Amino acid sequence: MMKVYCAIDLGGTKMNIGIMTREGEVIDHIKIPTFVEKGSEQAIKRIKDTIYELLEKLNLKKENIKGIGIGSPGPLDSEKGIIIKSSNLKGWKNVEIVKNLSVDFKDIPIKLENDGNAATLGEFLFGAGKGSKNFVYITVSTGVGGGAVIDGKLQKGGNSNAFEVGHTIIDLNGPKCNCGNYGCLEAYASGTAIGRIAREKLSEGRESLISKIARENIVKSEDVFEAAKEGDALALEIIEREGYYLGIGLYNIIALYNPEKISIGGGVSNGFDYFYEKMMKTINSMSLKPNIEICKIEKAHREDCGLIGAGALAFYE
Amino acid sequence: MMKVYCAIDLGGTKMNIGIMTREGEVIDHIKIPTFVEKGSEQAIKRIKDTIYELLEKLNLKKENIKGIGIGSPGPLDSEKGIIIKSSNLKGWKNVEIVKNLSVDFKDIPIKLENDGNAATLGEFLFGAGKGSKNFVYITVSTGVGGGAVIDGKLQKGGNSNAFEVGHTIIDLNGPKCNCGNYGCLEAYASGTAIGRIAREKLSEGRESLISKIARENIVKSEDVFEAAKEGDALALEIIEREGYYLGIGLYNIIALYNPEKISIGGGVSNGFDYFYEKMMKTINSMSLKPNIEICKIEKAHREDCGLIGAGALAFYE
Repeated sequence: MMKVYCAIDLGGTKMNIGIMTREGEVIDHIKIPTFVEKGSEQAIKRIKDTIYELLEKLNLKKENIKGIGIGSPGPLDSEKGIIIKSSNLKGWKNVEIVKNLSVDFKDIPIKLENDGNAATLGEFLFGAGKGSKNFVYITVSTGVGGGAVIDGKLQKGGNSNAFEVGHTIIDLNGPKCNCGNYGCLEAYASGTAIGRIAREKLSEGRESLISKIARENIVKSEDVFEAAKEGDALALEIIEREGYYLGIGLYNIIALYNPEKISIGGGVSNGFDYFYEKMMKTINSMSLKPNIEICKIEKAHREDCGLIGAGALAFYE
Repeated sequence: MMKVYCAIDLGGTKMNIGIMTREGEVIDHIKIPTFVEKGSEQAIKRIKDTIYELLEKLNLKKENIKGIGIGSPGPLDSEKGIIIKSSNLKGWKNVEIVKNLSVDFKDIPIKLENDGNAATLGEFLFGAGKGSKNFVYITVSTGVGGGAVIDGKLQKGGNSNAFEVGHTIIDLNGPKCNCGNYGCLEAYASGTAIGRIAREKLSEGRESLISKIARENIVKSEDVFEAAKEGDALALEIIEREGYYLGIGLYNIIALYNPEKISIGGGVSNGFDYFYEKMMKTINSMSLKPNIEICKIEKAHREDCGLIGAGALAFYE
């Protein structure tokens, strides 16, 4: 009998549900909207429906599923399988997702872990982290998140809320972050920050291709990268800034975690080649030599690491 | 036959050499000066002499020693047993301390680890960290250092240079640190920083008991704590500041490591009761609730954790 694993990558906008092998191959997957505002019950019901849909499509039975793994925004109580609450899942509170799923999927082990940790596991087992022992994954998109593998094991922390890297302070007199604190890495180096800086500069009257590329005055990091491709001065300046702040954040992580490999994913990693040089220059100029000598920094290999990592939770250790 | 372990806590000023049990009891120990400027050869020779002296005193033989552990300032190559160099051991370069000791102590396992990690292990196994699974030890004295235990295992990093917490950036526009970077935690929250701020304020003409307590214009953190005991306004202000910055540093650590226990050692921890309130207020106001709910912060239990941790390297894992 074919053994498969079910992967659920739960996000504030959409949910990605897949059937995968232990080798990290996604056999099939379906993306559906989360409809956060409609509550958690409906979302979990549609997750179940989607799993059944996938099984039917692949001509598989419930019995083929050897485990289910869920990556979710936190904070969570992963031991008890509960999503405590999340700014990305507004209105959801103490959602017993594991208990609810196990009504349908009895006797199948179900694991819940925060999405940053899940994606880290995916990239560690099947992406850039393969073969390393101390690995860090950073995702840069709306926010900045990630996870760490230490001596071959996923760092979960006391209650699965470790590696909140986006909310580490790099400048305590810096701008206010969404979390309420000041000078978080996320307030400087996220895709959101790139868009904000671009809008600020444009409204100051800077000439730039960005204003032509961006739609309806909403500037996204993609727009900045596209303008950079054409050699746009402002775009290159903003990307240089991104490399600098990301470099500061990674310097701190290298000082603490001393990893052999770091990979960067998320939407902003599409501009990896643009910000790489400045990022590395910042890191190299600040880091202890032995720490930087062993550390390689790459663009993430697996765009679907959030999904495969969620599934991998079901069989990892 | 009695089984003992030999512990070597190597510092820039002095070396502490002890004979201990597996249960963390130091049977006897001797402190000798390092005489860094005389080179590493003489220091290692005197370490050997001191071990022999202890053995004789305790009526023990070489054969009683089941392992030797060394905690040393880094960076190190702990796999190869080499002290690469250190700002605290000026002039020492690629010191093969393990190889050199094993000439005398053949067939005895000898481990080398950085001093912050060694002290963390000591406090984890025999101090405040006992019973926890995710533990952080911070030492605040001349500098700020420490180590982390993750899921019951000491975090070493790719080449034993993990947890350089003193040199994480908390304010990238901050004052210059000894390491050359700007705004390191150490530049704000170390004993050295306390002394510097006190001197600055006194030279600005602030009235304070500190100037009466301090000898020869060298202000130490102890002087500030002594003045605080008498209710001195400047001293209390400086300690409040210490609590704030230490709180910022610990907030970052809690966000990344999500530990159940943190203990604070080093000379500045003598003022723990003075800065505790402000430190906790800072941490509590900034941290994610689930992270702070499980995290207890205490003064270190074992002042000798650097020594017992070094010895414990010999039998840990």
